[in-house]
Amino acid sequence: MAYVIDTFFALFAFVLIIFMVPGFAMLEAGLVRTKNVTAVLTMNTMIYSIASMAFLLLGYKVAFGGFGSDSMSGWAAFLFQMAFVGKVVNIMSGGISERAKVVPMVFFTIVMSAIIYPLVVNFTWGTNLLKGTFLDISAMHDLAGSTVIHSTGGWALLAAILVIGNRRGRYVNGKVKAIPASNIPLVALGAFILWIGWFGFNGGSVGAISSKENADAVALTVMNTNTAGLAGAIIVGIINYFQYKKLDITMILNGALGGLVAITAGADVFNIYSPIIIGAIAGALVVIFVPIFDKLKIDDPVGALSVHLINGIWGTLAVAIFGNASFMAQLKGVVVVAVFAFVTSYILIFIINKIMPIAASDEEQLEGLDTVECGMESYPEFTRTI
Amino acid sequence: MAYVIDTFFALFAFVLIIFMVPGFAMLEAGLVRTKNVTAVLTMNTMIYSIASMAFLLLGYKVAFGGFGSDSMSGWAAFLFQMAFVGKVVNIMSGGISERAKVVPMVFFTIVMSAIIYPLVVNFTWGTNLLKGTFLDISAMHDLAGSTVIHSTGGWALLAAILVIGNRRGRYVNGKVKAIPASNIPLVALGAFILWIGWFGFNGGSVGAISSKENADAVALTVMNTNTAGLAGAIIVGIINYFQYKKLDITMILNGALGGLVAITAGADVFNIYSPIIIGAIAGALVVIFVPIFDKLKIDDPVGALSVHLINGIWGTLAVAIFGNASFMAQLKGVVVVAVFAFVTSYILIFIINKIMPIAASDEEQLEGLDTVECGMESYPEFTRTI
Amino acid sequence: MAYVIDTFFALFAFVLIIFMVPGFAMLEAGLVRTKNVTAVLTMNTMIYSIASMAFLLLGYKVAFGGFGSDSMSGWAAFLFQMAFVGKVVNIMSGGISERAKVVPMVFFTIVMSAIIYPLVVNFTWGTNLLKGTFLDISAMHDLAGSTVIHSTGGWALLAAILVIGNRRGRYVNGKVKAIPASNIPLVALGAFILWIGWFGFNGGSVGAISSKENADAVALTVMNTNTAGLAGAIIVGIINYFQYKKLDITMILNGALGGLVAITAGADVFNIYSPIIIGAIAGALVVIFVPIFDKLKIDDPVGALSVHLINGIWGTLAVAIFGNASFMAQLKGVVVVAVFAFVTSYILIFIINKIMPIAASDEEQLEGLDTVECGMESYPEFTRTI
Repeated sequence: MAYVIDTFFALFAFVLIIFMVPGFAMLEAGLVRTKNVTAVLTMNTMIYSIASMAFLLLGYKVAFGGFGSDSMSGWAAFLFQMAFVGKVVNIMSGGISERAKVVPMVFFTIVMSAIIYPLVVNFTWGTNLLKGTFLDISAMHDLAGSTVIHSTGGWALLAAILVIGNRRGRYVNGKVKAIPASNIPLVALGAFILWIGWFGFNGGSVGAISSKENADAVALTVMNTNTAGLAGAIIVGIINYFQYKKLDITMILNGALGGLVAITAGADVFNIYSPIIIGAIAGALVVIFVPIFDKLKIDDPVGALSVHLINGIWGTLAVAIFGNASFMAQLKGVVVVAVFAFVTSYILIFIINKIMPIAASDEEQLEGLDTVECGMESYPEFTRTI
Repeated sequence: MAYVIDTFFALFAFVLIIFMVPGFAMLEAGLVRTKNVTAVLTMNTMIYSIASMAFLLLGYKVAFGGFGSDSMSGWAAFLFQMAFVGKVVNIMSGGISERAKVVPMVFFTIVMSAIIYPLVVNFTWGTNLLKGTFLDISAMHDLAGSTVIHSTGGWALLAAILVIGNRRGRYVNGKVKAIPASNIPLVALGAFILWIGWFGFNGGSVGAISSKENADAVALTVMNTNTAGLAGAIIVGIINYFQYKKLDITMILNGALGGLVAITAGADVFNIYSPIIIGAIAGALVVIFVPIFDKLKIDDPVGALSVHLINGIWGTLAVAIFGNASFMAQLKGVVVVAVFAFVTSYILIFIINKIMPIAASDEEQLEGLDTVECGMESYPEFTRTI
Repeated sequence: MAYVIDTFFALFAFVLIIFMVPGFAMLEAGLVRTKNVTAVLTMNTMIYSIASMAFLLLGYKVAFGGFGSDSMSGWAAFLFQMAFVGKVVNIMSGGISERAKVVPMVFFTIVMSAIIYPLVVNFTWGTNLLKGTFLDISAMHDLAGSTVIHSTGGWALLAAILVIGNRRGRYVNGKVKAIPASNIPLVALGAFILWIGWFGFNGGSVGAISSKENADAVALTVMNTNTAGLAGAIIVGIINYFQYKKLDITMILNGALGGLVAITAGADVFNIYSPIIIGAIAGALVVIFVPIFDKLKIDDPVGALSVHLINGIWGTLAVAIFGNASFMAQLKGVVVVAVFAFVTSYILIFIINKIMPIAASDEEQLEGLDTVECGMESYPEFTRTI
C-alpha cells in the first residue's frame, strides 16, 4: 500500500505543480503591457512544452541516471521531477519579458532543461557527479529548491539581462520610467495559483507520505509553506501602508511569492513559528531589492530577481539560521550553484545571442512583440491607450 | 494507514478550499466596476493573509483548544480549519465592495478571525464553551457550515451594511441604479472555482475517508454538493427565461452558489434526490431576495446576503426537513449564531468605524478605490466609459 | 483499504475533470468576439448543469444499468462518469459559438446527456446492449474516450453545423473572413486548465490505483497524456515558424489539445516514446484540417472538429498502430459510433431546429448574442471596436 499511496501522492503533487504553468503565464501576462501579452503567453507555452520534452529525452537521465524508483512508480517520480524543469526557465523568462524573443529562448530552454538544470539537480538531489570532490554540495539542505530551482533560474535571468539589456525606454536620462501592469486580476489569479501550486512543490518534495512520520512531515511542510507566504504578503502590506498610505497589490503578491521561495529550502524542518520570520524577511527583501535593481539599471519587469534569486539565497541560508543545517554547507551550496548556473547560462545566452539576437529591436519593442512574433493582438477589441 | 490516508485526504481538501481564495477574488473582481477592481483584489489578498495568520496565532486555540488530532496529522487538521476562516470574511467583504476600505477591514479581519468566528466554531464543532448552558447549540447538524460559516459571514455583512451604508448613487430618488459587472468571464471563472472548492469544503468536513463507511460518506457528500449546485443554476435559468426571456448569467451562477451554501449543512445525510429540491429552493431564494434587499435599500453588490445568509439559514433548516435532524435544534443553532455573530460584528464594526471610517467618501467612490487605496488602475490600457 | 484508496482516487480524478468546465468556458470565451462572450459562458454553465442533472436522473442508468460499484464507492463511480457528460456537449457547443442560441441547446443537451451519449457509453464501457450483435464494438480499446467522448462530440458538432449553418459574414464571396479571438489570456488559461484536467480524465479512466500494477498504469497514463500534449504543441510551433515565421498561440494550444485527444484512447498501453509521435501527428492534423474545414465552408470558430473529431479518430486508430489493439476492432468502433452519433444528433438537431430555430438571425449575430440572449455585455466598460 505504501507504494500505491506514495505514487498517488506524487501524482497529486505533480498536478499542483503543473497548475503553476498557467499560474506563471497569468502572472506575467498581467504584469506586461497589452502589446506583449500574447508573446508572453506563447513564451510560457513553448517553455513548458520544450523544457518538459527535453527533460524526458535527456535531462532526467543526466540528473538521476535513468527512470526508476523504489518507493513509488518510476513514472510518477519522473513526472514530479519534470514538473520542476519548466519553472526554472519560467523564472528567467519572466524577468526578460517585453524584449526577449521566443525562438532564441527555445534554444536556451533546450540546453537549460536537458543539461544545465539537470546537472544542478545531479549535484544536489541526484546521482552527484561531484561526490568526493571539494565541490561536493550534497550536504546542503534544500528541500524543494530555494537554491536548486529559484536561485538557478534567478542566476540565469541575471546573466540574460546582462547580455541582452533592458527594455527600450525603461531608463531615460537616469530616471526609471514606470510601466504599469495591464491586467491586475490576471496578476492576482496567477499569484494565487502559484501559491497553491507551491503546496505540491514543497509538500511533494518530502518524497513520501505513507508513514506517520512522512505524513506529519508533509503536513508540516505545507503548513510552513503557507505561513511564509502569509507573512510575506502581510509585511509588504504594512511597509506599503507606512511608506505610501497605499497598498501596492503587485508588491504584496510578490512579497507572498518571496516568502514562498524563501521557505522552500527548509519547510520540513522548521517549527511552526519560524516561517513567520522567514517569510516576513523575504517580503521585506522584495521591497528593498526591487528599487535596488532599478537603481543598478537591471530591468526586471516582474521582480523575478528579488523574488527568486534574492529569496532563494535567503531561504537557503535560513535553514542554518532557524534550523539545524550547517551554515557553511548552505553557503557552499549557494555559491557553487551560483557560479555554475551563472557562468553556464551566461556562456549559453552569449552564444545564442551572437547567432540569433535574443532581444527585440527598439522598433519591434515599440510595436509590441505580439504582432512581431505572433501576428496576433491579445485584446484586439479593447482600445489601447499606451 | 488510516492516519496517512486521512492526512492526505485533509490536505487534498485543504488545497481545494484554498482555491476558493482566487475563486472569491475573481468573482468579486468581475462583479465590480473597473475602478474598484484592484481594491477588491487587495482586500481579498489581505483578508486571506491576515485571517489565516490570526487563526494560526490565536483563533485555532480559541476554537479547538490547541494543535493536535488523533485521526490525522495535527498540522493537516489545522490547515483544513484554517482554510475556512478567510471565507467568512470574504463573504462579508464582497457585499461591501466598492465602498469599504482595506485598512479598517484589516482590523475587522483580525478580531473576526482570532475571536468571533473561532467562538462560533467553539460552540458548534469545537470544545463548546456553552456546554451545559441553555445556549448549547452543539446538537445542530451543520456539516460544513451553512450556519457556522455562511450565516456568520452573512450576519457580519448585514451589520457592516447597516453601519457603513450603501454605495454612492446606488439608490437615487427611490430608484435602484443598475451597476453592471465589469468582467463576466472573471465572474464565471470565480464561481466555478468556488463550486469546485466546495467539494473539498463539504467532502473534507466528513473528517475522514479511511473506512468504507467514511469513503461512502465523502463520495455521497461530494455528489450531493454538486447536485444542489446544479439545481440552483437550473432553477434560476428557468425562472429567468419565463420572467424575461433572457438568461442572467450572474444570477444563474449565484443560484448555483446558493444551492451550494444550502447543501453545506447536510450534504452527508441526504439521499441523492433531496439535494435537487434543496438546491432548487436555494436558487429561487436568490432570485426572490436580491430584489428584496434592494427594496430595503440594503446595497450588496455581489448578492452575498441572498446567497450566503438566506441560504445558510435555509440549508440548516433543510437538514431537519429532509433529514433526521431536530428542527428545534437546527433553529436554535441558527438563532444563537445569528444573535452572537450579528451583535459582536455590529459592535466591532461600529467601534472601528468610529476610529477609522470604513466607508470611502463620495468623492473617493466617484474616483474609484483603485487609485485612492492602491494607487493603481486595474486595466490601465483599456478605455473606461463608466 | 483498496476500496478507500480507489474511492479517494476517483474523487481526485473527478475534481480534475470538473476543472475542465471553467477550462472550456475560458477557452471559448477567449476565442469569440466580446459581443458573444456572456452567451458562451451562459451556454457552458447551462450545459454543465443540465447535462449532469440529466445524467443523474436517467443517463447513468442507460449507460451502466444503475448505481453501484464493487471496487469503489458507487457515488464516486457515478461522479467520475458524470464528469464526462458535459464535455461531449461542450465540444459540440464550442464549434457553433457566436450563432447557436442557449435555449434550444438546452433541449439538445437533455437528450444528448440522458440518451444518446449514454447509449454510446453503454455500447463501449457499459452494459453493452449490442452484445452478440454484429454491431458489438466492445473490443475497441478506448481508455478514456477518443471515440466515445471526443468523436461523439465532434460528430454532433458536424451535424449541428450542417443543420444550422455558419456565422454571418464568415464566408463572403468565396473568401474566409478572419475573426480574431478577443482575449488571448483566457484562451491560454482555458487550454492549460483543460490540459491539467486531462490528467484526471485519462488517469482516472484506469479505474483503480490500489495495486502496484494499477498505480504504475495510472502514472504511465498521466505521463503519456502529458507527453502527447507537449508533442502536439511543439510540432505546431515548428510548423508555424517555418510557414509564417510567427507563432500562432491559439493554434499551438489547439495542437496540444489535439495531442491530448489523440492519446486518450491508448495512454495506458503505449511505451513512453510512442506518445511523442502520436501527439506530433495530432498537432499536424490540427494545422492541416483547420483550413480544410474552412475550404469546405464548415465554420468552426474554435477548431473543435480538427481537435476533437479528427484526432478522436486518429487516436483510436493509433492504439492499433502503436499498441496491440486490433485495427479492425478500432476501426469498427470508430465507424459504428460515427454513424450512431452523427445520425441521432442530426435527427435531434433537425427536429429542435424546426420547432425552435437554433441559429441566431443575421441581425442578432450582428448585435451579438450577449445582449440578445443575456441582456448583458461581457465587458461593458471596455470600448469595443469590432
